Amino acid sequence: MEMDLNAQVKKAGFLQRLKEFPSKLQDGVTKRIKNVQKFGKDDPRRIIHSLKVGLSLTLVSMLYYVRPLYNSFGVSGMWAILTVVVVSEFTVGGTLSKGLNRGFATLIAGALGVGAVHLARLCGDKGEPIVLGIFVFSLGAAATFSRFFPKIKQRYDYGALIFILTFSMVAVSGYRTDEILVMAYQRLSTILIGGTICILVSIFVFPVWAGEDLHKMIANNIIKLANSLEGFEGEYFPSSEKTSKETNSCVQQYKSILTSKSAEDTLANLARWEPGHGRFRLRHPWTKYLKIAGLVRQCAFHFEILNGYVLSDVKIPLDFISKIQEPCSIMSREAGEALKDVAKCIKTMKRDNVSINKHIEKSKNAIQSLRIALKTSSPETEKDLLEIIPGVTMASILIEIVNYVEKISEVVEEFSGLAHFKETPDPKVSPELGQHQLLHRGTVKPVLEGDNEEENNSSSHVVINVHDEQPPTTNEKQSFGRREDDESRCRVDMLSLPKL
Amino acid sequence: MEMDLNAQVKKAGFLQRLKEFPSKLQDGVTKRIKNVQKFGKDDPRRIIHSLKVGLSLTLVSMLYYVRPLYNSFGVSGMWAILTVVVVSEFTVGGTLSKGLNRGFATLIAGALGVGAVHLARLCGDKGEPIVLGIFVFSLGAAATFSRFFPKIKQRYDYGALIFILTFSMVAVSGYRTDEILVMAYQRLSTILIGGTICILVSIFVFPVWAGEDLHKMIANNIIKLANSLEGFEGEYFPSSEKTSKETNSCVQQYKSILTSKSAEDTLANLARWEPGHGRFRLRHPWTKYLKIAGLVRQCAFHFEILNGYVLSDVKIPLDFISKIQEPCSIMSREAGEALKDVAKCIKTMKRDNVSINKHIEKSKNAIQSLRIALKTSSPETEKDLLEIIPGVTMASILIEIVNYVEKISEVVEEFSGLAHFKETPDPKVSPELGQHQLLHRGTVKPVLEGDNEEENNSSSHVVINVHDEQPPTTNEKQSFGRREDDESRCRVDMLSLPKL
Repeated sequence: MEMDLNAQVKKAGFLQRLKEFPSKLQDGVTKRIKNVQKFGKDDPRRIIHSLKVGLSLTLVSMLYYVRPLYNSFGVSGMWAILTVVVVSEFTVGGTLSKGLNRGFATLIAGALGVGAVHLARLCGDKGEPIVLGIFVFSLGAAATFSRFFPKIKQRYDYGALIFILTFSMVAVSGYRTDEILVMAYQRLSTILIGGTICILVSIFVFPVWAGEDLHKMIANNIIKLANSLEGFEGEYFPSSEKTSKETNSCVQQYKSILTSKSAEDTLANLARWEPGHGRFRLRHPWTKYLKIAGLVRQCAFHFEILNGYVLSDVKIPLDFISKIQEPCSIMSREAGEALKDVAKCIKTMKRDNVSINKHIEKSKNAIQSLRIALKTSSPETEKDLLEIIPGVTMASILIEIVNYVEKISEVVEEFSGLAHFKETPDPKVSPELGQHQLLHRGTVKPVLEGDNEEENNSSSHVVINVHDEQPPTTNEKQSFGRREDDESRCRVDMLSLPKL
Repeated sequence: MEMDLNAQVKKAGFLQRLKEFPSKLQDGVTKRIKNVQKFGKDDPRRIIHSLKVGLSLTLVSMLYYVRPLYNSFGVSGMWAILTVVVVSEFTVGGTLSKGLNRGFATLIAGALGVGAVHLARLCGDKGEPIVLGIFVFSLGAAATFSRFFPKIKQRYDYGALIFILTFSMVAVSGYRTDEILVMAYQRLSTILIGGTICILVSIFVFPVWAGEDLHKMIANNIIKLANSLEGFEGEYFPSSEKTSKETNSCVQQYKSILTSKSAEDTLANLARWEPGHGRFRLRHPWTKYLKIAGLVRQCAFHFEILNGYVLSDVKIPLDFISKIQEPCSIMSREAGEALKDVAKCIKTMKRDNVSINKHIEKSKNAIQSLRIALKTSSPETEKDLLEIIPGVTMASILIEIVNYVEKISEVVEEFSGLAHFKETPDPKVSPELGQHQLLHRGTVKPVLEGDNEEENNSSSHVVINVHDEQPPTTNEKQSFGRREDDESRCRVDMLSLPKL
């Protein structure tokens, strides 16, 4: 009886599930579709790229569909299809790198293959396959070995692959056909057609530039680090206004920087293949991005350790915290602000050192306040140095982070010169500058021996700025700028004079 | 006259360079050859892999050279060559992943392509290319879009590429040929032949297993970190016996760990495709390696910061250094020793927790000594807390590193169970154990209710060990192990009891 009941319950459950199945299936499918839609919306360039591949495929299919084209190329048209499928990469740099590698490798390997077949035919009927076999074995092995070399792997890996492929195919199939030259010509021309279609579609239909991606990625990484730094205050000193939950997501943003090296390397590598586009010239200093990224990552390493102290349950005496809270808050906040300005400078490709240096200056002043706070607080709390160790360590790492932020801003400044960033349109002393107030200003035309007057016509005057060094007092100081162009930099150098 | 002399000097210089050219060329070539030789010697598997590719190519060429084979496959043999070239990867996992992806994608796409051609033929002569074009465009775009999804990209990227390729080729060329089924059959069978040759050569001729590489890589990373930790002592307290130059190379070894994530991810991904081999079973916990690697990298991040303090020019008072020198040296040395034992445990695939825990214990004891040293030293040096901040920070980070080393050993112990590591063959009390001296030992056969006697025949005795807890005194303590197998673990648990 019990068994019977059990069976009934089971049957009812099964029927229930059978009834629910269509609605569950529908829910599952809707969920999937929504996921896919969200994925496409996150980066619409993915959808565009997919449509571009479809377009290239349709274009290249014309080699088959259009009778006159089919008559001249025949079944070799499928090499064009193959080329389109494998050469179509997401970025212009990727497509160009693959396309050019494929084109040149096919050309060289095809020529060598035809030569090898002719040479082998001299060895008679029995010798021919043996000689061809030796050629294919040795050249295949040598080209495969070359792919291990880092320099070749980085740039010509695909070319080496296509070299092996084409040489083997031409050499081996040359054994069975006499029209090897016609075949090689047809194949090469269809590959060129396929490659050209890909490259044209890639460049002229909503192009995705690897260089631009790299540029944005570096700027975004700096912003992430800045957000983490600014969130740190609210996380470590939760008495601040912001809620802890809100800042926590900010604080974790730096995590992705820790392991972004390979993505950056790949983009920098592809960016080299790209022609000039937008504000990026042909010889844009792509490798410099990697230097900036390296410093940003170093800074993120430090923040990772800092974050470890935030997450740990170690209790630090409240009176000690209250002493270091203000300078630490200022340090992290101003370092974050400085980084945001650096990122803005990269994003807009406009120099704006004044604002960056102002924030760095403030955070360095906070370091001094922190030192003073530590100095004055130590005699009272010496009874337990152990308790304040985590706090001291945290402060110490925060100082290192500020130093790194300064290094980043220096490297970006150097980079901005190489990458021809625009000067800020109006380099006048802005009221936010605060520390230095302009009292007098005049221009003097200098007499330079052997100076080409035409060349220097517009910029050969010296600017003398007289600043008010300490706003409340009246000690005056002269700064001699050499040219108007150098003016903002001069002031910047002066601002960063009091090295801490 | 002067001009004449100038020209003469130039000419002489040119002739000189012309004379030197052959010897220079020879030098250059010799240097290159030596470089290549060295590169091959560094990892002879590279040469072996190159020869394997040559071998596969030669084998697959037989489809052309041998008349009966050529009669049955014809020019489709070139698909076998193509498959061999693109599927031959360095590791077995890579070859299997590409081979299986290619095989299944060709099968599915080929079937769909034949279906599409039949469907298109129903639409009449004018409709056929339009319908085929729509099919190629939409399926090509959809498959390209699918390649953006991380899960598909990770495992089936190549399959999606081959799907687009095969479907487009079959559908488009189906427009111009009536023997589409014969063509599809020939192509599929040659691809299977090429793929099979590759996979067989890859597995049976000097195989390179991605899993084994991952296993060794993780162990080597741990050794690198251990070397850095052990070198740290000589670097930071150069009064030690070792010369600074010698240790410096050791200290820098951890650097490569900071950015090894992508290499580890790739290997773990390929290892999943590999069948069981050697001591690695089919369902070896490959993802656990990534967990260990993550902890090792975290530890390396900390060491990076620590190393920054070593390289900085900050001067720390000598009396403070002398106080923390000994515990810090012990901490880094013992943590390094513990890591070396962990690496040995992974390399040999044998558990040896006793030795690991002994070293961790010692380094944790050193943390206590360090705390005491800091506590006693603080009242005297409180006059300048600022000066000792770098030293305190260094010590604090070193403590974190020791904690990470303990975490690594715990995760590796958990992993050793999942990966079926061998127990250490002789778990008797070794004299090096030092802390616990065996005084008495006996076995008692327990009476367990409902115990299957046959099953427990060999291991159903209880061991009672009486240890001398503190060697110089005579306080005795009893430890009750349940079974002989658990004996070493019992002692280990006891050893780690005094948690710090």
